[in-house]
Amino acid sequence: MKRVLLGAAAAAAMLAAALPAAAQFAKPEDAIKYRKAAFTLMQAHFGRVGAMASGKVPFDAKVAAENIEIAATLSNLPYAAFGPGTDKGTTDAKPEVWSESDKFRAAATKMLDEMTKLQAAAKTGKLDQIKAAFGPVAQACKACHDKFRKD
Amino acid sequence: MKRVLLGAAAAAAMLAAALPAAAQFAKPEDAIKYRKAAFTLMQAHFGRVGAMASGKVPFDAKVAAENIEIAATLSNLPYAAFGPGTDKGTTDAKPEVWSESDKFRAAATKMLDEMTKLQAAAKTGKLDQIKAAFGPVAQACKACHDKFRKD
Repeated sequence: MKRVLLGAAAAAAMLAAALPAAAQFAKPEDAIKYRKAAFTLMQAHFGRVGAMASGKVPFDAKVAAENIEIAATLSNLPYAAFGPGTDKGTTDAKPEVWSESDKFRAAATKMLDEMTKLQAAAKTGKLDQIKAAFGPVAQACKACHDKFRKD
Repeated sequence: MKRVLLGAAAAAAMLAAALPAAAQFAKPEDAIKYRKAAFTLMQAHFGRVGAMASGKVPFDAKVAAENIEIAATLSNLPYAAFGPGTDKGTTDAKPEVWSESDKFRAAATKMLDEMTKLQAAAKTGKLDQIKAAFGPVAQACKACHDKFRKD
């Protein structure tokens, strides 16, 4: 529980810092390219865990843990790149990301919290624990995509 | 010195595993998109360190260390995505990546070794050490780009 609260607190601090962080991108296009890249890599590494969770690929605890660690590192990155002015251009982000930013932030925080639990599960090295923690992360991804990403 | 050798050994092991890892991508386009995403993020985080190293942005040891850790994690990712069949399509990779794969591997290993030294420098929290270690990483990036990336 403490881990989850810390995760949420860290996420809130990180997301609160998103606005100044936008200054790290020279142009809005750079921020859009950056966040897309972060999601592309997250999807790839999370997908490799999913392939094991669903039995499509044989379970390897070390490989699963490595991919979960990479996905967790990546999961912190994209949100700083949704700053003002990055709602235009070649983006699939819906206007609600900015008009309902509290809900977007909550959706991101939910994913980060579930990812923290998946990291803990990975440390057990047990497939059943990883499977149990994988689903809620996937659901958190989907919930945010459904509401905040264009088809 | 031991750290460097370990870095090289880890890099060699990682690169040796690049071929089977290619199977992790359903299509060559997926591998190309993945490696581009990894380089995009590497560039962003390494660039933030560069802005401090060059004095464009005030030095913050914690922020520098965070960005170096992220860049280092990312730096291990792209090479598994240069498998067979990924030389065609929307890629800036030159044919030499595959026709001179030993040299490409050596160039990647050089960058990873220098990145390991930059991680060590970041742990000192000292700007002069970070600056000294930053240059060789940047040179290793450029050397590989000059030889293996189209303009």
